[in-house]
Amino acid sequence: MTNPETVASTQVTEVRRRLSGLEFFQQMMAGVLPPPPMVALLGMRLVEVAEGRVVFAGEPLEAFYNGLGIAHGGFAATMLDSALGCAINTMMPAGRSMTTLELKINYTRPLRREVGEVRCEATVIHVGRRTGTSEGRIVDAQGKIYAHGTTTCIVVEPRA
Amino acid sequence: MTNPETVASTQVTEVRRRLSGLEFFQQMMAGVLPPPPMVALLGMRLVEVAEGRVVFAGEPLEAFYNGLGIAHGGFAATMLDSALGCAINTMMPAGRSMTTLELKINYTRPLRREVGEVRCEATVIHVGRRTGTSEGRIVDAQGKIYAHGTTTCIVVEPRA
Amino acid sequence: MTNPETVASTQVTEVRRRLSGLEFFQQMMAGVLPPPPMVALLGMRLVEVAEGRVVFAGEPLEAFYNGLGIAHGGFAATMLDSALGCAINTMMPAGRSMTTLELKINYTRPLRREVGEVRCEATVIHVGRRTGTSEGRIVDAQGKIYAHGTTTCIVVEPRA
Amino acid sequence: MTNPETVASTQVTEVRRRLSGLEFFQQMMAGVLPPPPMVALLGMRLVEVAEGRVVFAGEPLEAFYNGLGIAHGGFAATMLDSALGCAINTMMPAGRSMTTLELKINYTRPLRREVGEVRCEATVIHVGRRTGTSEGRIVDAQGKIYAHGTTTCIVVEPRA
Repeated sequence: MTNPETVASTQVTEVRRRLSGLEFFQQMMAGVLPPPPMVALLGMRLVEVAEGRVVFAGEPLEAFYNGLGIAHGGFAATMLDSALGCAINTMMPAGRSMTTLELKINYTRPLRREVGEVRCEATVIHVGRRTGTSEGRIVDAQGKIYAHGTTTCIVVEPRA
Repeated sequence: MTNPETVASTQVTEVRRRLSGLEFFQQMMAGVLPPPPMVALLGMRLVEVAEGRVVFAGEPLEAFYNGLGIAHGGFAATMLDSALGCAINTMMPAGRSMTTLELKINYTRPLRREVGEVRCEATVIHVGRRTGTSEGRIVDAQGKIYAHGTTTCIVVEPRA
Repeated sequence: MTNPETVASTQVTEVRRRLSGLEFFQQMMAGVLPPPPMVALLGMRLVEVAEGRVVFAGEPLEAFYNGLGIAHGGFAATMLDSALGCAINTMMPAGRSMTTLELKINYTRPLRREVGEVRCEATVIHVGRRTGTSEGRIVDAQGKIYAHGTTTCIVVEPRA
Repeated sequence: MTNPETVASTQVTEVRRRLSGLEFFQQMMAGVLPPPPMVALLGMRLVEVAEGRVVFAGEPLEAFYNGLGIAHGGFAATMLDSALGCAINTMMPAGRSMTTLELKINYTRPLRREVGEVRCEATVIHVGRRTGTSEGRIVDAQGKIYAHGTTTCIVVEPRA
């Protein structure tokens, strides 16, 4: 289990049944567990994990641009959805996960390659028995805000 | 200009100055102009364009999954942001574009590879002088709704 | 039960246990059941009810203005929250209700007294076992859109 | 100008042309200027004002209930819209105002009369030349969160 390459998707789900959300993301950050495919595809990395708070890092490369010559809204949306959902899941016990019910994003500045690496910091606002909410911001090295958002997550039901 | 490969990003921006939004997206659908990099990366295609309405198609492949074994929220977010923004831009004259100010998405069903190709249909709600809004839905071949959303776009200011 | 004045708040909740959402709102429209206090306070009235669709009517009077001399955002928010939630609850059986989890509103034109009576039309988008979503618009007699929005509702849990 | 009763709505707009947003809301908190009609109607009061941050206080009385026996979603929406918009306007110079373009609210706990007075604290996230965003929370005396939200405001255009 020490080589991410050997941990298939179904195995990852199995691992999550034995680990709390916090332990799970700690192992992902340590490289023991692989990142989700979409997160890897967009070159994003989990760089901080604590109870109720996570940080992802990534770069607005040209491969992620829209037709206006700036990062596509889907880039910030993917980064925020990852961070907002993880922040909530760091508070879930073994065998229990929450998934995104809705996502809201504000775009405050254009993201271009010249901005360099940005961080997406997400923090839990409220976690109840059935739903949870969190907020997050995408900032550059100087703390400038490029996008911010909130999410509502809901407990995953066992698949029929 | 008939080979998308030869139309570089800066050239595309130049072309948009001479074409209305509707003409621009008609040429993109015809393959004369290339899709934006992020749209191509996620395998999405513009399949219908009219004044105030566009449709994108795409597939929730495993490469776009999150850690729960379903398509990452960023997949639907990218598809909706593309369609919602294009729908508004089909109503812009040559030289005038709107960009995403905020995006809101609801996830109503999990998207898995077995769902096959989905369509994202977006329609303008309101277009004013400074801002515009639109709504969209991601549906499968049977019309089941997997996600839906709205956006607010704002006129792009000339870059300083 | 034919005099709204005599139906107290706790009685209304009791009535809802025996009636489906659709029957309940039909009786409210007929004047057999009283409107909720907040809806009455802002002078709003339920004017159409069907499965998955309701319409409220109201007037942007000066009593509902903000400091800019137009109707406060809370006026449209109250109207939309009422209509969006009712539309979803018309699909609930006796004894089962959904309540607002989140609400998103776009303001597209200023609402002033001169606009006269406006209608808020809401329609269900998706109703599942645990959550439901709907969309709505506030329009004047000419069909001009002043605000639009969506909501996510969740099944009410029995109060501990 | 020391008696709020004597300051008519048109006069208030005139006063705002000479005062910055911060000065204007300081005078409103001091009782020199009257609160907007809708805010007064729902018994809400501005209790703290600083550059980029305001706090409103209010009570979820039965007059503001919905049909489920809890405060209507419009109550929290009005409180949040007031606070979120004021927070942004504290950063505007004399003669310049921003108005709500969109509003997003999450309801995390039911608000009932027994909760007593709640505070709605709002803080600016981003203020640019054309638009601004802010976030806010409604909390009770113990700091429990009942609702939270964000807004996007846009500069008011001179009325034609």
